[in-house]
Amino acid sequence: MKALLVVAHGSRREASNEEVRRLCERIRNEDGVEFDLVEAAFLELAQPLIPEGIGRCIAEGASEVVVMPYFLSAGRHVSEDIPAEVEKARRLHPQAAIHLAPYLGAADAVAKVIVNLTGGWTDGNTHE
Amino acid sequence: MKALLVVAHGSRREASNEEVRRLCERIRNEDGVEFDLVEAAFLELAQPLIPEGIGRCIAEGASEVVVMPYFLSAGRHVSEDIPAEVEKARRLHPQAAIHLAPYLGAADAVAKVIVNLTGGWTDGNTHE
Repeated sequence: MKALLVVAHGSRREASNEEVRRLCERIRNEDGVEFDLVEAAFLELAQPLIPEGIGRCIAEGASEVVVMPYFLSAGRHVSEDIPAEVEKARRLHPQAAIHLAPYLGAADAVAKVIVNLTGGWTDGNTHE
Repeated sequence: MKALLVVAHGSRREASNEEVRRLCERIRNEDGVEFDLVEAAFLELAQPLIPEGIGRCIAEGASEVVVMPYFLSAGRHVSEDIPAEVEKARRLHPQAAIHLAPYLGAADAVAKVIVNLTGGWTDGNTHE
């Protein structure tokens, strides 16, 4: 059983955390998704934190957990904090394979998403 | 002439700001992009700030500027700070049409990007 854990920064504004949980719901419903579980976790300020998120996936039966940083740039959180949490989780759950995927901003496809998102906002197409 | 201004938060870490500028370069090279200019600007901590970024696009000949918040959640920056900057720019440049596009996290396509980004990280496909 395979789990995807989408890790966002976490916000004091609960609506922002809810956006991440709704994104996970949308990922679950995507065609071609190969994960049995898709869950949200947070680096700080919201629940579950990363260790708890990984632990829950494993408790629900995942033998593989892919951790994906839902971040746009490779700052300290992406380059140090999240890898450190993943490393701790690997030691705690040696029976599971815990992988660290690239952060969202590293995806080439983001450029295409922006082209599609903004194209309709010019000319007579303004949606405001 | 149409310009796209990709507005990121801005970081003290210059490499993060450079990532946004490189993304703009990639957007320029996407098929089907309908903008003559694609530039980066920042809400704070990096140059150019939003007013200067919009002003530059117009100085280079843009009659339309689409401002796209490069953010993942609809916090205060997306819901208040960037719209306020756009409103100020509209008063300053009444001859230009300045549009505010949705923020990146609002794009449905982000779920598909994550499916594609993470799919290869399971099984024997691990890239670590």
